Amino acid sequence: MREPDDVTPCEAAEIKAWDDTVDVLVVGFGAAGSAAALSAAEAGAQVLVLERAAGPGGAAALAEGIVYLGGGTPIQTACGFEDSLDDMYRYLMAACGPDPDEAKIARYCAESLGHFDWLVACGVPFDPTFCAETSMAPTGTEGLVYSGGEDAYPFNEVARPAPRGHLAKTKRATGWLLMQHLAAAAAGAGAAVSADTRVDRLVVDDGRVVGVQGQRFGETVSLRARRGVVLTAGGFIFNDDMLRKHCPPLVRGTFKVGTEGDDGRGIRMAQAIGASVRNMYAGEVSLPITPPRTLIHGILINAKGQRFINEDTYMGRVGQSALYEQDGEVYLIVDEASYEVNWMGLAATWVCATTAELESEMGLPTGSLQATVDLYNRHAARGEDPVFHKGPSWVRPLVPPIGAIDLRIGPAPYAPFTLGGLEATVEGEVLNVVGDPIPGLFAAGRTTAGVCSFGYASGLSIGDSTMFGRFAGASAAALTPAARRTR
Amino acid sequence: MREPDDVTPCEAAEIKAWDDTVDVLVVGFGAAGSAAALSAAEAGAQVLVLERAAGPGGAAALAEGIVYLGGGTPIQTACGFEDSLDDMYRYLMAACGPDPDEAKIARYCAESLGHFDWLVACGVPFDPTFCAETSMAPTGTEGLVYSGGEDAYPFNEVARPAPRGHLAKTKRATGWLLMQHLAAAAAGAGAAVSADTRVDRLVVDDGRVVGVQGQRFGETVSLRARRGVVLTAGGFIFNDDMLRKHCPPLVRGTFKVGTEGDDGRGIRMAQAIGASVRNMYAGEVSLPITPPRTLIHGILINAKGQRFINEDTYMGRVGQSALYEQDGEVYLIVDEASYEVNWMGLAATWVCATTAELESEMGLPTGSLQATVDLYNRHAARGEDPVFHKGPSWVRPLVPPIGAIDLRIGPAPYAPFTLGGLEATVEGEVLNVVGDPIPGLFAAGRTTAGVCSFGYASGLSIGDSTMFGRFAGASAAALTPAARRTR
Repeated sequence: MREPDDVTPCEAAEIKAWDDTVDVLVVGFGAAGSAAALSAAEAGAQVLVLERAAGPGGAAALAEGIVYLGGGTPIQTACGFEDSLDDMYRYLMAACGPDPDEAKIARYCAESLGHFDWLVACGVPFDPTFCAETSMAPTGTEGLVYSGGEDAYPFNEVARPAPRGHLAKTKRATGWLLMQHLAAAAAGAGAAVSADTRVDRLVVDDGRVVGVQGQRFGETVSLRARRGVVLTAGGFIFNDDMLRKHCPPLVRGTFKVGTEGDDGRGIRMAQAIGASVRNMYAGEVSLPITPPRTLIHGILINAKGQRFINEDTYMGRVGQSALYEQDGEVYLIVDEASYEVNWMGLAATWVCATTAELESEMGLPTGSLQATVDLYNRHAARGEDPVFHKGPSWVRPLVPPIGAIDLRIGPAPYAPFTLGGLEATVEGEVLNVVGDPIPGLFAAGRTTAGVCSFGYASGLSIGDSTMFGRFAGASAAALTPAARRTR
Repeated sequence: MREPDDVTPCEAAEIKAWDDTVDVLVVGFGAAGSAAALSAAEAGAQVLVLERAAGPGGAAALAEGIVYLGGGTPIQTACGFEDSLDDMYRYLMAACGPDPDEAKIARYCAESLGHFDWLVACGVPFDPTFCAETSMAPTGTEGLVYSGGEDAYPFNEVARPAPRGHLAKTKRATGWLLMQHLAAAAAGAGAAVSADTRVDRLVVDDGRVVGVQGQRFGETVSLRARRGVVLTAGGFIFNDDMLRKHCPPLVRGTFKVGTEGDDGRGIRMAQAIGASVRNMYAGEVSLPITPPRTLIHGILINAKGQRFINEDTYMGRVGQSALYEQDGEVYLIVDEASYEVNWMGLAATWVCATTAELESEMGLPTGSLQATVDLYNRHAARGEDPVFHKGPSWVRPLVPPIGAIDLRIGPAPYAPFTLGGLEATVEGEVLNVVGDPIPGLFAAGRTTAGVCSFGYASGLSIGDSTMFGRFAGASAAALTPAARRTR
């Protein structure tokens, strides 16, 4: 019996007896896995889902549960927003870079309306109302939010803004509700599930993936797939060794987003047979400042007392910049008119009669914060922010008394997850380092690099996990590569 | 015959006839390859070096040729500098991060003095004089320079500063001279060389690397290694596809440092058999502002008119920050007293009577540059820079007329090369994704992740290439893993 961490592939000839044989094996029962299992089952394949936890859900069940969709969904329309696939495409090409995956983004947009219908067909309910207060899950049951800074600089200059964050109808636990429906849909279509089953490695036969080997209740199991194996095993935010190798800034994240199953095993077992990875440095970092939105009237500064971003952008972009570029040393400067304790209880750590006093109490370089506030106020008096382009509605001079909310790592939560992973085609085929599909191997979700190369919007992970999970499941269920490509 | 880009491994059983068999094959005849070939030959192995170009040299022959060594080398001592291995270690642990490879850095320091002797034994001449003017190759024959910002913030607070950039004695073409000696030493020790031979893939037998396959004058050649294959095939700065997948900022580099052989093939052929990579996002970016050092009296600003770094640090750190964090939009603000045209002919693009005019002509946000200069001058009047900690000798108020040198991508050269690559042990063993050595496979130089995880100092690449090249060659020459480990 090998070490559980030994992802080295197993040769089929070494397997004395298969414990089970099906058409398609799906590794992981989260957002991507449930979609893959459903579509493979609907394509007529005998499907077995292998989940290391006791039940379905994965990271998606713990998440806000936003699904990024646009181009005029019924919810957008009901809420009075016009949107086009072209605007959605231009926004994503700008927001998901640098060097976004054009093929994935184009397909993601083209399938967006159909994917909404698919969610509804899976039983996911949506409340056709809009919540303006947040770029995160609303406290009510509203089904639509701005979730990627579409209405702020620079994206409002690239594409007509529209909210595209769709949420299942429930108060909180939105991701959990979504996953309840998707897992039930997969089971309803006939996918079998083997819980408490952790896949450790792939089984290969002459370069083709023909099965997996893993552990179930302490016993080694070898499972054969006649048609294909789909890796939907999550990302690697819970693997510090991988984080250090690929994206050291994320090691310092304090509220890692995912389950302990996000240990990168799915990525590594494919790398072990020559699969290609990409965007491994990329990570989304949530830094939950709003709600309330009134805090956006303040200014974000770094350890040099400088501003570094427009405060009205998506909080995930703020978090990325704060952790990757500012080393997690940031603060929100607020005055009395803009201040409220935020939803997580983040309150002002310092409050002073003057900016000079505040600067001194915070230990910032003398004059640095004063210069920043003076420049900001000078423009704000005219309702402008020519330096960072915060929207006019959020711009007004900061009037002492003035305070600061400590947003450094520790006082504030930094909630990251990984965006890099296996290089997979739109159809879910995993590519080797030459750029050719590895026969029999498919993947989707955070085991793969998705639509986001680095930049992110809330809802894109569950969005691309479920959509490309569907395609990967259908590809695996198809009997031949030719059949797959014409699907 | 396969496509040249097909790095998929070849099974030994597929080889009908080997074109040659030796003990050790070394892939690439640059800094790491020549060191590996020499040490393997000295260990008694029959060595064949495979070089895709017509002759030896690789990227090192085109480089400044600095070798980073310390702890009290004869050159440091002759120039009157005290240094210790402990100071060198503390500097490197601070400068090579985040998350530097402690094992490699510890070994690099421990072997530093011996490695200097090794270079001398290879015939490399050193002029025991110090050049204060530059952190790059001097115009004279001086053998010692500061090459990593050791005498500037923050490293001067971490370790006692000492110059550790060692250069072979010649005017310019230092890297070329160094490589002439190293290649001659390898040949002198008995290593054979096959030029115009491009290795495309590894040959494996039951999980062990037993040879390589490639092209020589248009013909496929299959070459067997009884003991080991050493990959010293350079980095991937000349492979835009890999740059986009792993470190998108470097795509925009205008003067890529290396040869067209730096196409990542060595990395990919090992990945194809399950080798692990790390630090793939990391790249050094030279932005040659100095000499002359008088320009350091100026201030570097970004597109927001903000300073972002202490101007007296190593120019490679400036370049990294400019390209990775400031998107290549930076300028050097100078006054008359500090201005000279730099050695590459970079001259002031704008010169104005006042800072306000300059700001306006440059198209910076109104008031932004003025606020920055005012804050800088306020502290500079007391010889201080509490914001970015430039050393007191470089700090004095900027007095109009004032100008700016355009250091954006295009007007200024950004010269990057990659630092990420295969994960290899100190002894040169290439690790698979499980963390185990791949039998028969060794690597060094920019095909591997070296002492620099991200931060860099000039001379660390040739330094770690030659030192860990030596170890990798000796490991490959040893007959057994046990013999290797006790070398």
